[in-house]
Amino acid sequence: MDYDTPLFFHVMQYAAAADRDVIDLVSGGPDWEPPAPLREGLREFADADPAEFQYPPSDGLRALREEIAARRGVDVDRVVVTNGAGEANYLAMAGALERDAGNEILLTDPVYPYYPGKARMLGADVRLVPVAEDGGLDVAAMREAASADTAAVLVNTPNNPTGAVYDADTMAAVADLAAEHDAVLISDEVYDHYDFSGRFESALSVDGDRAVVTNSFSKSMAVTGLRVGYGIFPPELADAARTRHMLVNVTGARPSQAAVLRALRETGPEYYEASRDLLCERIDAFTDALDAAGAEYVVPEGAFYVFARFEGFPGTLENVERLVDEAGVACMPGDTFGSYDEWVRFALVSPRAEEAAERLADYDGF
Amino acid sequence: MDYDTPLFFHVMQYAAAADRDVIDLVSGGPDWEPPAPLREGLREFADADPAEFQYPPSDGLRALREEIAARRGVDVDRVVVTNGAGEANYLAMAGALERDAGNEILLTDPVYPYYPGKARMLGADVRLVPVAEDGGLDVAAMREAASADTAAVLVNTPNNPTGAVYDADTMAAVADLAAEHDAVLISDEVYDHYDFSGRFESALSVDGDRAVVTNSFSKSMAVTGLRVGYGIFPPELADAARTRHMLVNVTGARPSQAAVLRALRETGPEYYEASRDLLCERIDAFTDALDAAGAEYVVPEGAFYVFARFEGFPGTLENVERLVDEAGVACMPGDTFGSYDEWVRFALVSPRAEEAAERLADYDGF
Repeated sequence: MDYDTPLFFHVMQYAAAADRDVIDLVSGGPDWEPPAPLREGLREFADADPAEFQYPPSDGLRALREEIAARRGVDVDRVVVTNGAGEANYLAMAGALERDAGNEILLTDPVYPYYPGKARMLGADVRLVPVAEDGGLDVAAMREAASADTAAVLVNTPNNPTGAVYDADTMAAVADLAAEHDAVLISDEVYDHYDFSGRFESALSVDGDRAVVTNSFSKSMAVTGLRVGYGIFPPELADAARTRHMLVNVTGARPSQAAVLRALRETGPEYYEASRDLLCERIDAFTDALDAAGAEYVVPEGAFYVFARFEGFPGTLENVERLVDEAGVACMPGDTFGSYDEWVRFALVSPRAEEAAERLADYDGF
Repeated sequence: MDYDTPLFFHVMQYAAAADRDVIDLVSGGPDWEPPAPLREGLREFADADPAEFQYPPSDGLRALREEIAARRGVDVDRVVVTNGAGEANYLAMAGALERDAGNEILLTDPVYPYYPGKARMLGADVRLVPVAEDGGLDVAAMREAASADTAAVLVNTPNNPTGAVYDADTMAAVADLAAEHDAVLISDEVYDHYDFSGRFESALSVDGDRAVVTNSFSKSMAVTGLRVGYGIFPPELADAARTRHMLVNVTGARPSQAAVLRALRETGPEYYEASRDLLCERIDAFTDALDAAGAEYVVPEGAFYVFARFEGFPGTLENVERLVDEAGVACMPGDTFGSYDEWVRFALVSPRAEEAAERLADYDGF
């Protein structure tokens, strides 16, 4: 495997080295407070008995798995706590490929770049299927692309980078097409707390027994660095996921799991509502500014991002660097996400998102 | 892959369900206090700015990597912080196999069971080479077993389960034989702080540019549940390790890394000496009791374990369960570790290790 310094890292370094003030809208780590009980959980852990500092069960603290299972309405045996949703997606893809029912993984284009990276590392063929004009899933195109060689169809809803949210009909259709080809539907739902459309539907609701649903507390609790995610696996894939998790990682970090467990139990809906409201306000202000700048963009129905294009200003790395230098705004070049090299992605996880929007509206280089 | 409930888990459950008091010498999680600065580091983290709760760099906090690199005398670019040594060993094996210079991984017999598990998950062939009578590495047998198909030779020193420590000549010889076959030497040195022989030699000292050295703070700081380990990779394997780490785990847990960093900086040698002295005392008392019980055992030169056999009492699961029920001592059956089904392993990480020894000395079922 080749190692390329991830492009987001390059852009962040370029922005940091710039000879001016730059607002960083590159990466997807929230800028707001984690829940107070999460901090309290870390403090409590710091004073715990030495036995608490030793290996938790490989598939996660039992109480955390039970809490997740109860909230998701699934049997606890189907829940594997992972090192973030990143590991859960890796386990899900590996499990789908080990079934020997195809070697191809279907993804959308644009795509979160870790997905094709993981798939190729596992030896899979990757097929990218362009999304619909509005950023939503093009179910007909997905159906066209699926074949006997399809091992898995992976969707991400709410979506990074487009902000699309897939409704119940869409989820049912993609579950059906996966089933028709004996493929595993993998649904990465890490942004499920950031659905502004009210139409989000988990794959668990439409294909509860067959789909792998991955998630984490990274985004919902604003703690991407704690590395607590989970997969809910169909019974026939759960043991393989558990085995691979054990062989790769032994287990996950216990202070993080203990803190998330406490936060999960003690955090009320107002915490999540406040984060969602904050993002909604930022998105409104940001898209107003994009309108003023004459940009085209996908109206986000969920998640943290605005995927946009500026006429005559393709989202190349060169132009992204120009935006840093001339507008003081850092974003991600579009070809990171597949074949969308005309586009750029703004992550609205900065308290200065609105100020960045004003800078873009005022920028005369487009 | 098949998932077997790990045998250690089965024995621990059997011991917990027993209708009597049982001393658990099954798993290898230390029972003593972590360093005080580590607890302090967790407390400090709990109060940190929200930005500290977000993704650390994928290959670990820069300051932690620098601290490790300085202590080990290597370039910081060679250090990848991992989710425990377990992940570092996985990355090392994967990197060795990706070189397309063989598909076989040489291991010792007895062997820590995760090694063959990881190797087979990665599609490698596994060859187990019996150790010498005294538990040490049989270099001649290793040399005999090595071939053009050897991708990696993995050694663990101080050793789990035998307690053997490989001296400088042994390490140089195994490094040579790896080099002769264009294989990667992987040296798992997680017990390096528990060398009672004074003869421990890191692979870094004898084969610094070619070997992969894996380690963690799990054992040295008594924090197996924090999941902070690292690999020191040769320059030509470091980027592949970084890429795989990023694709599997994105990054490791930041509270754990921050706490370990503080502990690494502020913990004096007396902490490590005290743990080593405690273990030495336990091993002396335990082996005295084994003498009284007429057992054969490998005299541990390092690590936490005593690998022993009782004449006429093979280390089957059935006999291990008898020891639980009749002697009140729980240990690991030997065939967990390869073909040593006559043997059992005692992990001396219980404040009641000495009491367990007395129970064994008094037991009349052998």
